[in-house]
Amino acid sequence: MKKILNPNKNEWSALTQRPTKNYKDIEGTVTQIFKEVQQKGDVAVTKYTSFFDGIELSKIRVSDVELKEAIVLVPNELKDAIKQAKTNIEAFHSAQKTARIEIETTEGVTCWQEKRPIQKIGLYIPGGTAPLFSTVLMLAVPAQIAGCKEIVLCSPPDREGKINPAILYAAKLCGVTQILKVGGIQAIAGMTFGTETIPKVYKIFGPGNQFVTVAKQVATQFGVAIDMPAGPSELVVVADDSANAAFVASDLLSQAEHGADSQVILVSTSKQMIEKVEKEVEKQLKVLPRKTTAEKAIANSKLIYIENVATALAFINEYAPEHLIIVTENEDFYLNGIQNAGSVFIGKYTPESAGDYASGTNHTLPTNGYAKNYSGVNLDSFLKAMTFQKITETGIQNIGKTIEIMAEAEGLQAHKNAVTLRLKSLEK
Amino acid sequence: MKKILNPNKNEWSALTQRPTKNYKDIEGTVTQIFKEVQQKGDVAVTKYTSFFDGIELSKIRVSDVELKEAIVLVPNELKDAIKQAKTNIEAFHSAQKTARIEIETTEGVTCWQEKRPIQKIGLYIPGGTAPLFSTVLMLAVPAQIAGCKEIVLCSPPDREGKINPAILYAAKLCGVTQILKVGGIQAIAGMTFGTETIPKVYKIFGPGNQFVTVAKQVATQFGVAIDMPAGPSELVVVADDSANAAFVASDLLSQAEHGADSQVILVSTSKQMIEKVEKEVEKQLKVLPRKTTAEKAIANSKLIYIENVATALAFINEYAPEHLIIVTENEDFYLNGIQNAGSVFIGKYTPESAGDYASGTNHTLPTNGYAKNYSGVNLDSFLKAMTFQKITETGIQNIGKTIEIMAEAEGLQAHKNAVTLRLKSLEK
Repeated sequence: MKKILNPNKNEWSALTQRPTKNYKDIEGTVTQIFKEVQQKGDVAVTKYTSFFDGIELSKIRVSDVELKEAIVLVPNELKDAIKQAKTNIEAFHSAQKTARIEIETTEGVTCWQEKRPIQKIGLYIPGGTAPLFSTVLMLAVPAQIAGCKEIVLCSPPDREGKINPAILYAAKLCGVTQILKVGGIQAIAGMTFGTETIPKVYKIFGPGNQFVTVAKQVATQFGVAIDMPAGPSELVVVADDSANAAFVASDLLSQAEHGADSQVILVSTSKQMIEKVEKEVEKQLKVLPRKTTAEKAIANSKLIYIENVATALAFINEYAPEHLIIVTENEDFYLNGIQNAGSVFIGKYTPESAGDYASGTNHTLPTNGYAKNYSGVNLDSFLKAMTFQKITETGIQNIGKTIEIMAEAEGLQAHKNAVTLRLKSLEK
Repeated sequence: MKKILNPNKNEWSALTQRPTKNYKDIEGTVTQIFKEVQQKGDVAVTKYTSFFDGIELSKIRVSDVELKEAIVLVPNELKDAIKQAKTNIEAFHSAQKTARIEIETTEGVTCWQEKRPIQKIGLYIPGGTAPLFSTVLMLAVPAQIAGCKEIVLCSPPDREGKINPAILYAAKLCGVTQILKVGGIQAIAGMTFGTETIPKVYKIFGPGNQFVTVAKQVATQFGVAIDMPAGPSELVVVADDSANAAFVASDLLSQAEHGADSQVILVSTSKQMIEKVEKEVEKQLKVLPRKTTAEKAIANSKLIYIENVATALAFINEYAPEHLIIVTENEDFYLNGIQNAGSVFIGKYTPESAGDYASGTNHTLPTNGYAKNYSGVNLDSFLKAMTFQKITETGIQNIGKTIEIMAEAEGLQAHKNAVTLRLKSLEK
């Protein structure tokens, strides 16, 4: 781990930098596959599934029989865990419902805002070694609360043409309306254009490798919205002497095991704590099954000593971490001052993995500094805020003149005329 | 105007199509200017201002003296109109504030969501013939309510090096913190990278021509967020025999005068109403100052007769208009059934221009079918929803097992370990 002592403000830019990737090579492949899926539909999808996933599928859609068979395979203990997590995620996201906001801005002028669900959404769930059924919960639960009508889930099949049973179980439990065995670029392309089997959707959610990330970006060129730009996972822990070094080390490592490019940073006002955490990391790292991955991430990670708490806070705000753990005596100082972070974990007994699975908050969060300008996924991610207005005869008489004057000053005579005609009709 | 009678569902895709633009030519220019502004800052900005706006500026920033001088030039009548509009916009957007949402999902596990302002935002206000001071209100008012710290406004100078006084007046009134005389691609690039004079911002809002639109898209490649993808303005009016044909025509024309590519559609269950509106449009069009523009838009506009109300509603939802005016006897049918629209105007005395200026709703709305997946600009556009969680000893004992089981099943041992360590420390 790299140790940095009281960095100067002119070093912050380098310290807050994330590894930049060059997506140009990938873009060509993505554009090519998009074109083929747009033109040939399922034929192209099946071809690329065979190519990338090594399996010839006769049917893309997961059948009810397959679903039932898979559900039996999920251990009861895991089912119960998934159910408890779901209950908490449901509670927290249901609490985010907002009532219709109505206000009479001027006598006779009533305006209101209502949120209505995005009708068709797509969830992408990666396959591979770590079956992310937790992400199914994080996306399908709020989608169902929001009232999205079609919830389509795409996940790549394994070499036997199957999707991990826990993913299928979670999907069924959370009201996913269609599950498709398709992954990677071809899945995103399928949901963008629609094929014979894959429904076209309006917004695509979910994590993925660099191919999926670029494919989601390309999808936005075709009118599809996406949850957010994705990047490697990140954690900043801010700790003083009151923290437990072993706990801090375990949190840093849990982020580090995600990938070699994971971003892990400890900011501390205590040099002793930095030493202790460093030792604990070394110790705990040795016994991890994903040691090789975590080791690479840890090699790039930073232990930053910042003497002054205000400076520490300012640095964290500049970094804008996806996850922030606060383990300091005066936690309110950081809590009130943090402006840019995806999700914040407070105190000794709040590991970041609680938010990944079961506390109730969402784990789909802005990385790569996007916490400065993006929210994490929340109930509103599945809704659109629409506005409405109804003006009475009195209302148009009250604001008509104002509209006429403003429209005239902007040189928009027809805008003015729409009001003038109405006002004239009301003259007695 | 094109008349279409009871279109078949297979014609809908053509009828809901917007004109597509090829931005490829523009992209090269945009990328080039971005590169130069990134490397040379103000020097590049000044060069392109001279090139595109025909004026050599020694100072980019609008000074306090300039601001004072300009404010004197705005007629009192217009100042009062702007103030009334501001009051209504403020009332409606203040009502959109949401309290902190806090919930104990499991005993000892407290989660909450709080919204915090995006610290630095940029507003782009086009110059040219129509000075859009109304857009200043629509963007700066909610930004100020949200609590954004830096509100930067860029607008191109005229040939005398000035910005329209009404824009400056509105900016000053609504708490814009810096006003810069810079337009087009160079303005967007300046706010993306920051220059000696132009502050770097986290999110850029506002309309613009095709160069600005592409520049905003390119800006997103550099970590900046934007309000939404922009396209030509649109209006759908749904009217039955109860509507006033002259009013409907005036609304269609007020949208048509925006640009030759404006999208204007009347959907009606009454053939008579279609005939009447067509005649009224012809009559009113003749006397408009922006007749040439409106004429072109009207030539492409459509009068669609749909016999069945359910089909009419389904068509409108498929079109997903930026603006929808409902002037029918059974307005609740459309009101309850509309899923995809930016802003909805109900009844005879609610012209679309009311929402453009003074009713209180926002006029920055999704075009080009984006009403299916995007909200219009609202208070939340200037905020990020952040989540927080605090878990007690009891809390981690309550959900610890669940996290361990799920992390293990996803193959993430370090995630599990972060919990196990804490649980063990609590064993007596």
